[in-house]
Amino acid sequence: MNGAEIIIKTARAAGVEVCFVNAGTTEIPLVAAFDSEPGIRAILGVFEGVCTGAADGYGRMLDKPAMTLLHHGPGFANGIANLHNARRAQTPLLNIIGDHATWHRHADPPLAMDIEALAGSVSGWFKNCNSVEMLSQDVADAIAATMYGRIASLIVPHDLQLSEWKNTKAVSPEFSYDPVDTDTIERAAGFLRSGKKTAVILGGRALRRRGLEVAGRIKAATGCDLFAGSFPGYMERGAGFPDVVRIPYFPEGAIEMLSRYEAVILAGAKEPVTFFGYNGVPSFILAHNQQKVSIGMGKENIVEAMGYLADLLRAPKNMKAMDGIVTKLNRPPLLGGALTPEKACIILAALQPEDAIIVDEGLTSTLSYYPLTAGLPPHSMMTIAGGSIGYGIPCSVGAAIACPDRTVINFQADGSALYTLQGLWTEARESLNVTTLMCSNRSYNILKMELVRAGIKSPGKSMQSLIELDNPTIDWVKIAEGFGVPAVSVNMVEELAREIGKALAEPGPHLIEMMF
Amino acid sequence: MNGAEIIIKTARAAGVEVCFVNAGTTEIPLVAAFDSEPGIRAILGVFEGVCTGAADGYGRMLDKPAMTLLHHGPGFANGIANLHNARRAQTPLLNIIGDHATWHRHADPPLAMDIEALAGSVSGWFKNCNSVEMLSQDVADAIAATMYGRIASLIVPHDLQLSEWKNTKAVSPEFSYDPVDTDTIERAAGFLRSGKKTAVILGGRALRRRGLEVAGRIKAATGCDLFAGSFPGYMERGAGFPDVVRIPYFPEGAIEMLSRYEAVILAGAKEPVTFFGYNGVPSFILAHNQQKVSIGMGKENIVEAMGYLADLLRAPKNMKAMDGIVTKLNRPPLLGGALTPEKACIILAALQPEDAIIVDEGLTSTLSYYPLTAGLPPHSMMTIAGGSIGYGIPCSVGAAIACPDRTVINFQADGSALYTLQGLWTEARESLNVTTLMCSNRSYNILKMELVRAGIKSPGKSMQSLIELDNPTIDWVKIAEGFGVPAVSVNMVEELAREIGKALAEPGPHLIEMMF
Repeated sequence: MNGAEIIIKTARAAGVEVCFVNAGTTEIPLVAAFDSEPGIRAILGVFEGVCTGAADGYGRMLDKPAMTLLHHGPGFANGIANLHNARRAQTPLLNIIGDHATWHRHADPPLAMDIEALAGSVSGWFKNCNSVEMLSQDVADAIAATMYGRIASLIVPHDLQLSEWKNTKAVSPEFSYDPVDTDTIERAAGFLRSGKKTAVILGGRALRRRGLEVAGRIKAATGCDLFAGSFPGYMERGAGFPDVVRIPYFPEGAIEMLSRYEAVILAGAKEPVTFFGYNGVPSFILAHNQQKVSIGMGKENIVEAMGYLADLLRAPKNMKAMDGIVTKLNRPPLLGGALTPEKACIILAALQPEDAIIVDEGLTSTLSYYPLTAGLPPHSMMTIAGGSIGYGIPCSVGAAIACPDRTVINFQADGSALYTLQGLWTEARESLNVTTLMCSNRSYNILKMELVRAGIKSPGKSMQSLIELDNPTIDWVKIAEGFGVPAVSVNMVEELAREIGKALAEPGPHLIEMMF
Repeated sequence: MNGAEIIIKTARAAGVEVCFVNAGTTEIPLVAAFDSEPGIRAILGVFEGVCTGAADGYGRMLDKPAMTLLHHGPGFANGIANLHNARRAQTPLLNIIGDHATWHRHADPPLAMDIEALAGSVSGWFKNCNSVEMLSQDVADAIAATMYGRIASLIVPHDLQLSEWKNTKAVSPEFSYDPVDTDTIERAAGFLRSGKKTAVILGGRALRRRGLEVAGRIKAATGCDLFAGSFPGYMERGAGFPDVVRIPYFPEGAIEMLSRYEAVILAGAKEPVTFFGYNGVPSFILAHNQQKVSIGMGKENIVEAMGYLADLLRAPKNMKAMDGIVTKLNRPPLLGGALTPEKACIILAALQPEDAIIVDEGLTSTLSYYPLTAGLPPHSMMTIAGGSIGYGIPCSVGAAIACPDRTVINFQADGSALYTLQGLWTEARESLNVTTLMCSNRSYNILKMELVRAGIKSPGKSMQSLIELDNPTIDWVKIAEGFGVPAVSVNMVEELAREIGKALAEPGPHLIEMMF
């Protein structure tokens, strides 16, 4: 067995089943090692941003370590933007990066660059492997680090991949949560018992099923309100779950919404801040006179912390107490006429199947979608997390690989889609059940909104050319078909409803270009 | 005038005329500033790798500072791979990167990341601006740094862009070459006078017209042979220039070629090394017993250093002495039949117009092209320099913007094209005279060659899936048309010749998919 094989074997033994790959020469031993370990399925992305975004989507869906294999510094660099989103989404994600042989580095060959600096920019854990004896331990340590919702990046020189591995056993990751901090939880309980109007902002695993169940109990016991950050990485949603309100993107709305609360409990969530810094608006949404406490942070288990809190509060466990807390099934009715972004949101809400996975990178086009979804059949939802555009298509790829029996719907802005459109090819190659609803407004519409905020009323000619995508118009049907994804263009609501029905009835990927 | 405006004004005063832009909210004041400074044309790329690659192509063609404007850490990260190529090509290139307002950084908002770490990985000079008073000086310093063939990256927080600039004058870059190191040049002259068989390896500006003219004189005086590295960033080529042999990519060929020389002069070039480290093959191509000297390195002017060398050697200046040194016009004849990569190389060589700009990212498909080009009408040629794939389409964009009256031909591998295919849209928007010859072999063929070297005779099923791009086949005609570029597919030599003729006769971009 060589070094490459023990890397793959260690990952497999730790539960990794899929690796998203864009490899080159220096990773050939690792590429070859997949053939010796059939338990890991290697999936090709034709651009590294597709691989890292797919790993992010996969890790978000399954809440278990996702894996990539990338080529050198430039290959890793191409993956950074989506790793940035994964970092903000707290996705468990392991990158293996091939590098030149240790003895070749001093020659500064053309591809050489400072991979450690790049890896450090997004990784909670990273290491440059320096001995074959440590390879399995390094992989195990990296995987353990991911389990706290971090990115781990391991740089593996080519000669170590080829070196002989003499032990027989793969090292297992050692992972355990820190005990929950009962003092902060007592303080949170104090807020909730005090009669003060209290908001609980949920983040990370608190937005998964078990977290939401406990959040519902806490709400039933105390009447608190439940929130999530503006761009949660992953959440479960729909009838049977308590409604969780997302904090608005623009700070005025966020401040108005949260200023009503005397106390705020941050449950696995960071304190909310404005996305950009606007003159005259504070960076932090909460005021100094609002009481705050964070529970379940760092290496604690947020669900355990919330459970402890619920028990302190003697929160009910019976389903009946949840009656007024969880939402009831409620779909908007279908409608007709010329398509607008708002109508597209309604149509999707009216038609999305139970257990759907919604990947929302619609930005301005999907602003009105989320409030429609509290009463839909239960579903999963993912948003951009780190704000780095180009996550939607890759994330959908990863979600569909993670959950082959579920329907993935990628509600996608056109400008953002252009960053990682190559992911459509992987959708076709792997026959993934992804339907892309492409919002074609042919502009960077979010910049137009920000221009208004910046007080620029009539953009000059040069600025106009930098925010409009209409010359020439991008033909998403041709592009999707070019990658092997069947596609159609619609501009009427009735057409959209019909085409969504057809796409969902037929296996494999589809793209519906919605002309707004 | 605000900070953003003085940045743009300083760049303009220093000679910058074009900026390749993919901007976001934090750069809105800079985007607006282009409308106040019509001397800089802002060109939109719909992915940052297109912007940086285009700036690289622009800078390589004009040998003057190219400029980009990029959004935050993730936007810059998307541009790193092509900046890596630019760094290896010694392209003068200035990046302006917008960041959050200084007062907003402590909130660690979603888009925040370590931009300095990213900038440092490819930049010879970088700075995080920290006062509005220094902005013009910072830009001038950055531009001065680029003039030594480096990348300079300036991070500009949003509040500094908006701050009032109170001076009226833009600072000018201060730039001067170091005096040439006459001791090393004397040593080089000694090699050439000694009667030892001597190779001169040309790099950087030595491969431009003036450098090649001096190289021709040195060759005429001494009988030395002229070489370039495997992947020169930019070179002039064809009838009337001395032939310059590129050092082969695979080390055995490189060693065989260069081991015949007792002495080697590195003229603006790094010592040749193998692209990857192969077991049993040394990293450096030259042996210890071969004498070596480097001239015109660092901040020296290589053309001045070569001129000094030529004068020391009393090299002839008259055209007649060049008669046997420079190549004569010699085109291969057209041929026919089923298309192969080799035949495509011959057809291009037979048809490319005088003064064409050839962007070669054909990798395995264009291996036989370069040896055909010594006697073609004079033309410019660019290669991948840093080995980071996805440079061809963007580099062609930048070259066409730099030289609107010349024909750009992008001889392009399909696997590599997928990394930055969004550049086709900018070709269409700007009506660029770029003809893309897409080599569709539907595989990562270079990996197949490296597999053979690695002794892997029959790749397993998993490996096969990671090196073949044939399921599904990518339809480049549809993709190009989707971006607004007219396209056609050919598989016969006669068709290719006809379609090249049509594409070159018609203004604007074209793509010809060549099915091998």
